[in-house]
Amino acid sequence: MNPEQIIATLRTLVDDGRVLTDPADLEAYGKDWTRQFAPRPLAIVLPKSTAQVQAVVKFANDNQVALVPSGGRTGLSAGAVAANGEVVIAFDNMNRILEFSPSDRTVHCQAGVVTAQLQAFAEENGLYYPVDFASAGSSQLGGNLSTNAGGIKVIRYGMSRDWVSGLTVVTGKGDVLELNLDLEKNNTGYDLRHLFIGAEGTLGFITEATMKLTRQPTNLTVMVLGLADLTNTMDVLQTFQKHIDLTAYEFFSHQAMLHVLAHGLVQAPFDTQAPYYALLEFEAVSDQVMDEAMNLFEQCVENGWVVDGVISQSETQARNLWQLRERISESIAPRTPYKNDISVVVSKVPPFLREIEAVVTEHYPDFEIIWFGHIGDGNLHLNILKPEAMAKEEFFDKCQQVNTWVFDIVQRHRGSISAEHGVGLVKKGYLQYTRSPAEIDYLRGIKQVFDPNGVMNPGKIFDL
Amino acid sequence: MNPEQIIATLRTLVDDGRVLTDPADLEAYGKDWTRQFAPRPLAIVLPKSTAQVQAVVKFANDNQVALVPSGGRTGLSAGAVAANGEVVIAFDNMNRILEFSPSDRTVHCQAGVVTAQLQAFAEENGLYYPVDFASAGSSQLGGNLSTNAGGIKVIRYGMSRDWVSGLTVVTGKGDVLELNLDLEKNNTGYDLRHLFIGAEGTLGFITEATMKLTRQPTNLTVMVLGLADLTNTMDVLQTFQKHIDLTAYEFFSHQAMLHVLAHGLVQAPFDTQAPYYALLEFEAVSDQVMDEAMNLFEQCVENGWVVDGVISQSETQARNLWQLRERISESIAPRTPYKNDISVVVSKVPPFLREIEAVVTEHYPDFEIIWFGHIGDGNLHLNILKPEAMAKEEFFDKCQQVNTWVFDIVQRHRGSISAEHGVGLVKKGYLQYTRSPAEIDYLRGIKQVFDPNGVMNPGKIFDL
Repeated sequence: MNPEQIIATLRTLVDDGRVLTDPADLEAYGKDWTRQFAPRPLAIVLPKSTAQVQAVVKFANDNQVALVPSGGRTGLSAGAVAANGEVVIAFDNMNRILEFSPSDRTVHCQAGVVTAQLQAFAEENGLYYPVDFASAGSSQLGGNLSTNAGGIKVIRYGMSRDWVSGLTVVTGKGDVLELNLDLEKNNTGYDLRHLFIGAEGTLGFITEATMKLTRQPTNLTVMVLGLADLTNTMDVLQTFQKHIDLTAYEFFSHQAMLHVLAHGLVQAPFDTQAPYYALLEFEAVSDQVMDEAMNLFEQCVENGWVVDGVISQSETQARNLWQLRERISESIAPRTPYKNDISVVVSKVPPFLREIEAVVTEHYPDFEIIWFGHIGDGNLHLNILKPEAMAKEEFFDKCQQVNTWVFDIVQRHRGSISAEHGVGLVKKGYLQYTRSPAEIDYLRGIKQVFDPNGVMNPGKIFDL
Repeated sequence: MNPEQIIATLRTLVDDGRVLTDPADLEAYGKDWTRQFAPRPLAIVLPKSTAQVQAVVKFANDNQVALVPSGGRTGLSAGAVAANGEVVIAFDNMNRILEFSPSDRTVHCQAGVVTAQLQAFAEENGLYYPVDFASAGSSQLGGNLSTNAGGIKVIRYGMSRDWVSGLTVVTGKGDVLELNLDLEKNNTGYDLRHLFIGAEGTLGFITEATMKLTRQPTNLTVMVLGLADLTNTMDVLQTFQKHIDLTAYEFFSHQAMLHVLAHGLVQAPFDTQAPYYALLEFEAVSDQVMDEAMNLFEQCVENGWVVDGVISQSETQARNLWQLRERISESIAPRTPYKNDISVVVSKVPPFLREIEAVVTEHYPDFEIIWFGHIGDGNLHLNILKPEAMAKEEFFDKCQQVNTWVFDIVQRHRGSISAEHGVGLVKKGYLQYTRSPAEIDYLRGIKQVFDPNGVMNPGKIFDL
């Protein structure tokens, strides 16, 4: 079948006007937030139902047409990039919340529901969807689940995976499966739901999901603490976790904060300078919890772990303290940062970070390193800023070298080359740093079971 | 290879004296708590390490020897029964806790560690392992994970699955895989860890696991409420969940309680009689939470949902109230109960339960039905007691008929034929009531990838 015939047939499978071939649309729908790969899709298809997705997948199987799923296109690993003439299935028109059950505290959504839309819906109904991250305003549920998105509340609420009670998927063979039937408890053989979550659309496409909600948090209170030393992140974490359920435990370096302060809008939390800062959040459900938190803070100061600190006294103050952490990315964006999203077990964070810093500084003393991340989960965002005088090409070439050093250190510490962003195209060349050759063979075997013709997001995560 | 040769070779693969062939051992290790299948294993092998398990699995592949994994043998679905001349791999000698990391709050265990041993270890270290159930004194971690065991705290703490940060498995092909590397965040392709959890040893055997621990709960407080009507279980649940994180929400019928009271040792919680009772547990972390709970209780009484109630004022009282729920199984055991472990989404529990009761009562008015279970998760344990005068055979024949009615109703309500006990041999004939034919085909495909020679626990969950 030639491209024209493919496009003509696609037009018979979805609603009128829902197959796009304009250059501007191909450009917009063919990429995500990564910029390394030039989008070059054949066409964009906007189905409105699971049945229409199924029709397109069956057609793709019969005619060996490669498909790429596209959600909010906020990915950072090029999992949703169509750079090889693929047909993009975009879920923008599958954005309806189909059903809400207050007793079950579940909400059944189409895959194109936007994260913030789900959060708002929960709130309107007196409940809470706790998975939250910077791209919540445009990321879609299907993409969140296909990459098992994490974010800023993982320490308390887990990853996207933990909020799924049911999934509807169209497999690579074109079967519609309703996985787990929205049940809380269901031990009837292999849990395929967890196989599709995080599979980046390579086994099939998620078309609907039933998400769990929970009660709204009470009086969220934020502390920002200046730490005497990097290892004190662990001491403080352990001290607090014994008594208080933290809803967030974030960290950033002084270097990171300087960029936020220079960017304006946010003030320093206190005058004392510290090399690293921790941001803790918890529910101050009672005065007793607040007293407990103050006692723990004082313990940390007495032990010399914390040099200064501040605690929010209102919602506005809490929001302002969060800005210190949340505005880092935008404040360094003009400096063309090399970004990496890596993790190790929490206790290994200090030596892990130091090793990376040492090797980068040794070879590239003019590189400015910015650290921040979800340290309560062992997840660090490493950012290296381009020296002003260096050309982009030279910088990115050098960063390729940095990649190898970083992933060597990741492997030595039994860490992950992608803590929360997925593999996509960007990290598939490095998969073996976290997964063994035998494991990768099994991944290929599973792919073969669900997508024997290799039409679902081919070339993502691994090559066949 | 003949049986003698197999046994002789097995003796070369594990430590001296660790291959058992005495009839008493074959009987003991060849079965679990189910009694429908006569154990008939060829031999029992007791490896002490992952490497020894791997050696046995490789040998089994080369010689087409069927293997059955055996943990604490407390299963209720015959997942660990060896009834066809299989070689049993028992994990009793792999019962060491290998490593503990306080900062990570994780503990690395061999698969034969007993649940209560892990709970005690956590407690000694000021932490808590929250997965708990009646067989905790003998069930082993490997078995818990292979059946994704649930229990009495799922509403707050989830299933066994939710506490695993890393797994070591020997696949059916004899590969040792270290899955997820104990990481909190790791999005690098399909999560094989979740595939092995709940697979009942049909893809490979779990040999080691890194389990997460959490902080110890504070001042656990129990309420037992008499409910005016079955549907009030939902009203009470919703009312409390909006404000308090329940650590348990159990239910039992008056009929169930009568057996416990008749059995002695436990007293009625209050004089008022109710058709159903709910048991709530929560952390009374402050006086404010206690006041909140009392207010919610009063609301429930005012709305006519609750006819009477009691709240524990001490740990001893809390433990005593739990007895009302926990002693049901043993109090009805002498009555040869037919048992079923089923689930639906929470909101469907009332109609679901009534339909089952109606069909059983219509056909067998002399059957006494006992209901209890983890209603906060939609998980009901249906027990039917044999009429004293009826012969066992006749009763079990009739119960086969009941099975079909029950599973028809389960299917109509999109429920699970096995909420927490797994499928094993007991429920494999009914798998299609919860999983679609297409899904079951994919399960077979996955089995083929990990265990192409079909040596791992063959005949469990589904036939090839």
